[in-house]
Amino acid sequence: MIYFDNAATSYPKPENVYQEMMRCIKEYCANPGRGGHELSIRAGRAVMEAREVIAEFFNIKDPMRLIFTKNATEALNIGFRVLNEGDHVITTSMEHNSVIRPLKTLERDMGIELTIVQGNEFGEVNPKDFEKNIKGNTRMIVCTLSSNVNGIIMPIKEIGDIAKKYDVIFFVDASQGAGTLELDVEYNNIDMMAFPGHKSLLGPQGTGGLYVAEGIEIRPIMQGGTGSSSENLFQPEILPDALESGTLNTPGIVGLGQGISFINSFGLENIRKYKSLLIEQIYDGLSNINGVIIYSKKEPSDNSGIIAFNFEGVESTEVSYVLDKAYGIATRAGLHCAPLAHKTLGTLKSGTVRISVGCFNTKDEVDVLLKALKEISDNLK
Amino acid sequence: MIYFDNAATSYPKPENVYQEMMRCIKEYCANPGRGGHELSIRAGRAVMEAREVIAEFFNIKDPMRLIFTKNATEALNIGFRVLNEGDHVITTSMEHNSVIRPLKTLERDMGIELTIVQGNEFGEVNPKDFEKNIKGNTRMIVCTLSSNVNGIIMPIKEIGDIAKKYDVIFFVDASQGAGTLELDVEYNNIDMMAFPGHKSLLGPQGTGGLYVAEGIEIRPIMQGGTGSSSENLFQPEILPDALESGTLNTPGIVGLGQGISFINSFGLENIRKYKSLLIEQIYDGLSNINGVIIYSKKEPSDNSGIIAFNFEGVESTEVSYVLDKAYGIATRAGLHCAPLAHKTLGTLKSGTVRISVGCFNTKDEVDVLLKALKEISDNLK
Repeated sequence: MIYFDNAATSYPKPENVYQEMMRCIKEYCANPGRGGHELSIRAGRAVMEAREVIAEFFNIKDPMRLIFTKNATEALNIGFRVLNEGDHVITTSMEHNSVIRPLKTLERDMGIELTIVQGNEFGEVNPKDFEKNIKGNTRMIVCTLSSNVNGIIMPIKEIGDIAKKYDVIFFVDASQGAGTLELDVEYNNIDMMAFPGHKSLLGPQGTGGLYVAEGIEIRPIMQGGTGSSSENLFQPEILPDALESGTLNTPGIVGLGQGISFINSFGLENIRKYKSLLIEQIYDGLSNINGVIIYSKKEPSDNSGIIAFNFEGVESTEVSYVLDKAYGIATRAGLHCAPLAHKTLGTLKSGTVRISVGCFNTKDEVDVLLKALKEISDNLK
Repeated sequence: MIYFDNAATSYPKPENVYQEMMRCIKEYCANPGRGGHELSIRAGRAVMEAREVIAEFFNIKDPMRLIFTKNATEALNIGFRVLNEGDHVITTSMEHNSVIRPLKTLERDMGIELTIVQGNEFGEVNPKDFEKNIKGNTRMIVCTLSSNVNGIIMPIKEIGDIAKKYDVIFFVDASQGAGTLELDVEYNNIDMMAFPGHKSLLGPQGTGGLYVAEGIEIRPIMQGGTGSSSENLFQPEILPDALESGTLNTPGIVGLGQGISFINSFGLENIRKYKSLLIEQIYDGLSNINGVIIYSKKEPSDNSGIIAFNFEGVESTEVSYVLDKAYGIATRAGLHCAPLAHKTLGTLKSGTVRISVGCFNTKDEVDVLLKALKEISDNLK
């Protein structure tokens, strides 16, 4: 099996992720922050260490403002709880359903106002389109770091500057790109950021996080035991407790910390360059195959690690199916939970085949992939 | 380290839990239900198998009405989303903050009406107290299966019968007891049930579940990608998708399935009997130590596996501290996120020392514990 579905879940993980997760669950997986005994303290310390590693990775100054969640979807839904009736939100046509569905639901049920900035045929958005849509009740700009459909990278620095200028909350969905692209919340004026642990950050499934800048208060989406202020029948207001009810996923969080440690030891910039080489190789190879339409851009500055393509007139699912069954190559076809992005690219009907690279893919694997696609193309004639 | 904090998180886990989790994460941990390739299908199948194992364990007829959550707290918060303004809810004074805090918040913010049935000095409640509080707008009875403070078992069969008689939703918080006590949703007329994976069900942290009986519709607490109906900008209504947005914790869920398989192979009744023997041994031993006040009952029909006690006039935290530091024995002191339960037992000020047994504890470990407590008692004189 050659795995090119890293935008869904990265696979495999670094060896240190497996090892420390297993060590955690076998040796010290008591309840973190819930007891005073040795194992509980050790579990709590492991969670805190991971919190610090992740905070440093994103240049989050106060690790306590980093909330652990089960995935990016939960983080996004928690973040949207800052919104009130009548608030205006600006987002893009390249968002995943984890952004669009909560916003459409808030529009329908709570009366928020929604503006969707349209991307061009590659999903590129113009920062000016955000600025010109800002009005008195604009409370938030939500934007993906890069598209999960075609990897296009959004101009988040420019958008962040606009958000800051107009005192609007800037909420970044870093699901695609965190762990590949340099991402500094201070530099980019990011007020809130959601990320999954199991994609390019190389952690396990069941992990994710939300960063909330100082000064932003969120109504908890859940209430429950926090191990703090136990006598209080209401949720404590202190972070991270206010937004982290119930027992945390200690081994998962430990694994996520290890994933980021791996990235740090390898060098984010090196991982980025390596993935870009693979993307260029795929792009160039695909460009030489008959009947291929590519929906991604080639340049590293435009691509976080995804090539979206179709064979002209062929359903994306058919191509992915053949790649899997005949060649043992995993890709993902269809709409990738992002219908507006596909509408933007003009692929809502057919979907696209998505090749998403990870740092453990090799140039040899890309050769096998390209050979397979060439054969499929030849058979289509 | 001797571990008697199983009511917080069971430790250790059965060997097959470790093994299959590691096999999952190393060999087939792609994104379940998100792609058509071999690994994704294998991950999806593993999630489905765990869903079926769990459903069968609780006699849930339709596994698709079992929702995976990150913990019991999330499951409870999702379940409470069936409530509307003006609904009346009856609960007990023995609930955990994961029940009390959401309900108090709904009372304050959404105008639900709340009745708390008072337990006696052991936390025992009288089913008749539920019946006599039912009125026209009573929509739900929420009750813990057994107390996380002192292990007292609630008369859920009798309460379930009353709920059925008056057509009120019966929501059981099975956090303490699932995996120890026989628990059949049909027999007990349970309409909704929340459970964590990481306690007596012997799964890992980061897992839990919610059962929702047919006919009950819940407004999703989150919206996001579901891998289904991707073109729809709103959440699909089909279960489990409606309530399972974002990537699931595949290795965690696989581990939970293995935990339950272990229970099945060992026999729930055997585990129950074994834990009862340990509880009786602790109870009898403690009864012979000077100055000990026990807040739990001894009989298996009254106790799911917890002994709560204090030394007269001594802070619970001090005792747990000495047990940990001087004897390497892990217990949990304080309020256990259940202040109303402690108020009921008369221990709100001091808290209690909680000894919670797991199926891997031994009689020899109990001997060591009792010897330590005897010494602590002698030193108090």
